[in-house]
Amino acid sequence: MQDSHLDTLRERLAARLRKHLDPAFVLVREEERRPYECDGLSAYRHLPLLVALPGDIEQVQAVMRICHEEKVPVIARGAGTGLSGGALPREDAVLLGLSRLNRILEVDPDNLCARVQPGVRNLAISEAARPYGLYYAPDPSSQIACTIGGNVAENAGGVHCLKYGLTVNNLLALEIVTVEGERLRIGGSGLDSPGYDLLALLTGSEGMLGIVVEVTVKLLPIPERTQVALAAFDDVEQAGQAVADLIAEGILPAGLEMMDRPALRAAEDFVHAGYPTDAAAILLCEVDGDNDEVSEEIARVRQRLLASGASEVRTARDEAERARFWAGRKAAFPAAGRISPDYYCMDGTIPRKHLARVLREIAALSEQYGLRAANVFHAGDGNLHPLILYDGNAPGELERAEEFGGKILELCVEVGGTITGEHGVGLEKINQMCAQFPPEELQLFHAIKAAFDPNGLLNPGKAIPTLNRCAEFGAMHVKAGDLRFPHLERF
Amino acid sequence: MQDSHLDTLRERLAARLRKHLDPAFVLVREEERRPYECDGLSAYRHLPLLVALPGDIEQVQAVMRICHEEKVPVIARGAGTGLSGGALPREDAVLLGLSRLNRILEVDPDNLCARVQPGVRNLAISEAARPYGLYYAPDPSSQIACTIGGNVAENAGGVHCLKYGLTVNNLLALEIVTVEGERLRIGGSGLDSPGYDLLALLTGSEGMLGIVVEVTVKLLPIPERTQVALAAFDDVEQAGQAVADLIAEGILPAGLEMMDRPALRAAEDFVHAGYPTDAAAILLCEVDGDNDEVSEEIARVRQRLLASGASEVRTARDEAERARFWAGRKAAFPAAGRISPDYYCMDGTIPRKHLARVLREIAALSEQYGLRAANVFHAGDGNLHPLILYDGNAPGELERAEEFGGKILELCVEVGGTITGEHGVGLEKINQMCAQFPPEELQLFHAIKAAFDPNGLLNPGKAIPTLNRCAEFGAMHVKAGDLRFPHLERF
Repeated sequence: MQDSHLDTLRERLAARLRKHLDPAFVLVREEERRPYECDGLSAYRHLPLLVALPGDIEQVQAVMRICHEEKVPVIARGAGTGLSGGALPREDAVLLGLSRLNRILEVDPDNLCARVQPGVRNLAISEAARPYGLYYAPDPSSQIACTIGGNVAENAGGVHCLKYGLTVNNLLALEIVTVEGERLRIGGSGLDSPGYDLLALLTGSEGMLGIVVEVTVKLLPIPERTQVALAAFDDVEQAGQAVADLIAEGILPAGLEMMDRPALRAAEDFVHAGYPTDAAAILLCEVDGDNDEVSEEIARVRQRLLASGASEVRTARDEAERARFWAGRKAAFPAAGRISPDYYCMDGTIPRKHLARVLREIAALSEQYGLRAANVFHAGDGNLHPLILYDGNAPGELERAEEFGGKILELCVEVGGTITGEHGVGLEKINQMCAQFPPEELQLFHAIKAAFDPNGLLNPGKAIPTLNRCAEFGAMHVKAGDLRFPHLERF
Repeated sequence: MQDSHLDTLRERLAARLRKHLDPAFVLVREEERRPYECDGLSAYRHLPLLVALPGDIEQVQAVMRICHEEKVPVIARGAGTGLSGGALPREDAVLLGLSRLNRILEVDPDNLCARVQPGVRNLAISEAARPYGLYYAPDPSSQIACTIGGNVAENAGGVHCLKYGLTVNNLLALEIVTVEGERLRIGGSGLDSPGYDLLALLTGSEGMLGIVVEVTVKLLPIPERTQVALAAFDDVEQAGQAVADLIAEGILPAGLEMMDRPALRAAEDFVHAGYPTDAAAILLCEVDGDNDEVSEEIARVRQRLLASGASEVRTARDEAERARFWAGRKAAFPAAGRISPDYYCMDGTIPRKHLARVLREIAALSEQYGLRAANVFHAGDGNLHPLILYDGNAPGELERAEEFGGKILELCVEVGGTITGEHGVGLEKINQMCAQFPPEELQLFHAIKAAFDPNGLLNPGKAIPTLNRCAEFGAMHVKAGDLRFPHLERF
């Protein structure tokens, strides 16, 4: 589209929107639009056509109705903390910011739920529920900043999703505004709802099916006690096997994280968590529940980890030490940034039982490509975040890092996993979707999209690749046992 | 369609199908088709056009391909235990029986899952997992007979879904055959999968979107110990309030069931469960976990129930008494059949906190219509099964019972619940769907259906009413605070 055409469109839209929204919340000047040019995938930036910041549901409806009439695409945005570019703007699309819809409407301890607006921060829900002895379980690392609307859009996880599930497992109802501007309530107070499961369908749909304007989340009783064990291993594969052993024994920790030597050393240097820096890998295993239960379970965890070859198992002596153990894990990404000019954070999942094998092969690939890798895993649920360390200024290193990354994803698929874990597809992984799904399933995705959004106005170009794009990308579907995987480009 | 036309079609289809299936498993004679004329909703019966009983996935594909070419509808059937007529045949449709796909393909203790064919009985999964100390959690009352394929189609629940969730919460992956005969794998080993959540969308879709040919279920460790408390109340509303109190206190029992006096007396007369027959209502509250945890939790349950006004709280002295306590609950429906010539089993859900109010109003309606009601509730998750007792031979009683039932569903919607709980919509509740959902949401359902099945060949006429049907039914959408509910006809 030509710039002059976009300017005209911007002016016309702004004039129409200002009849419904406070003019101060319809942003058209370049310097006002600039802060919205990217989300957490900051390598990609586009200025939006304009930014609309509605203050209530009626205003969201007005934005959607006007954009629908004008056939202008709409990209919803929460706090902009997403890592896959789901909220990346387009120059021909309205950026719909939902941060002003930030009220907690109701905390209902009788029914263990809370009704909140989409712009409420994840952590703020637990803060509001605390006086009732309750909390909201999913806890993405960004929980101080990220908002529940974005959590729904990406089906966010967190350290504790092994035991408590993802966002989709912790929702009761949604209210959405459709692409035509209609309000629709989805789900309800019951466990099940008749008709197709639109609640699950909308969760994780990355702003492609509707605009979430209200969320009813489940609340859980705050556990009486939480304890964490730190286990050191002299061998990375052994640590991977210990995870499988623990789960196979019927122990379901609240969180089960793994870091290898490069990752734990970087974290230790950064935040002084008290990690054993001579270990080849550590596991952090958290259990929660009532007092006796935790005592008994942590004893079982210790016994099992020692039997699986841990050289040492420590439990946090007090709350301060527990917080330090976790601080190291939570700082792992920035810590990697301190030991390497650049890093490439991968996000894939594998079946737990293949952890040891995948770790061994990542080590071999690291050798082969001459690039270090620091491994930080949500080990319990098989979600891997290998960080490939490289120097973007050294000739050829970026390309080697991307090829190395492609091989890791290839490996994830080979052992029966997926090319994305918890960060969503967004723009970042849209090509890899061609490799993950056969054309028949992609066609189903498009048909479902068309059911909600026949003109393709909601977040176009994200999450689900067109079949044409896949043809251009040259991907072949990977069938178990017959892996012919194309080179996975990052973008 | 004329009989002669159907006969010709039957002959042609049978000839084509017999090239792919053992001819003994293509049933065309009337006496062979007769056993398939109804499911658990036995008031409605139709002979299917023919019955195809494939023995493997390739044969399912052949059936679907041939029916797709011939534009003949297909109705999938598992064990036929469904209560809402979801597997009711049509004279112009092939009945696709999946009972021969009954192999347990893999029990995988490392990844806590099992891969099974759709015709495997629910209980058989737990039996196969027992040697590994594992079990499959959802336990519908029909679990001895019902099959996992049907459980997926109806998103089956059970006594323990309060703590462990419905079928959808206990699945990892599905393999389906599409209406065109294509195989498609949905979901995987990870907690999340990129793309839209087709796994949840298919679960509970009542055979309208695809044919389930393989199911990967989650397995859980068998709890070390299970204990049940039986609490007696002199007042029904007080029992309802006690349920809300218990949950609000942060106690999440494995099961929490309620029976009022008519229900518990009928059950006691039938199976001699040891219930206190002078109580106005009883609660059965089951807790599970390790030994200490159960001891502590059952003590909390007892304390809480007494504080909420229970006149007596007993815990089962041994496993035999625990089994007797549950035998009474499980026999409640047949027991009602012994004290009344006919009964009408309702199935709705309400938010837990309104239990006391809904019980009070059901009692008032019982008075008003001059008909007894026996109440059997999955109280913990707000799923009600009031049984309206009537005599179909007494003039006007059936009509009064249906009107009474309609008022109960009206009440469920009024307090924020739904007109169906766990039994599915099928044919039985299709008219009530018009009242539950606004036209916009029904349109979305139809568009999703069309994405999977553009010609409407999969289980036509079930689960999702056409907008025309709703217009004929004359239903109005119920908006919160402005309830104008039409008379709910049963069928």
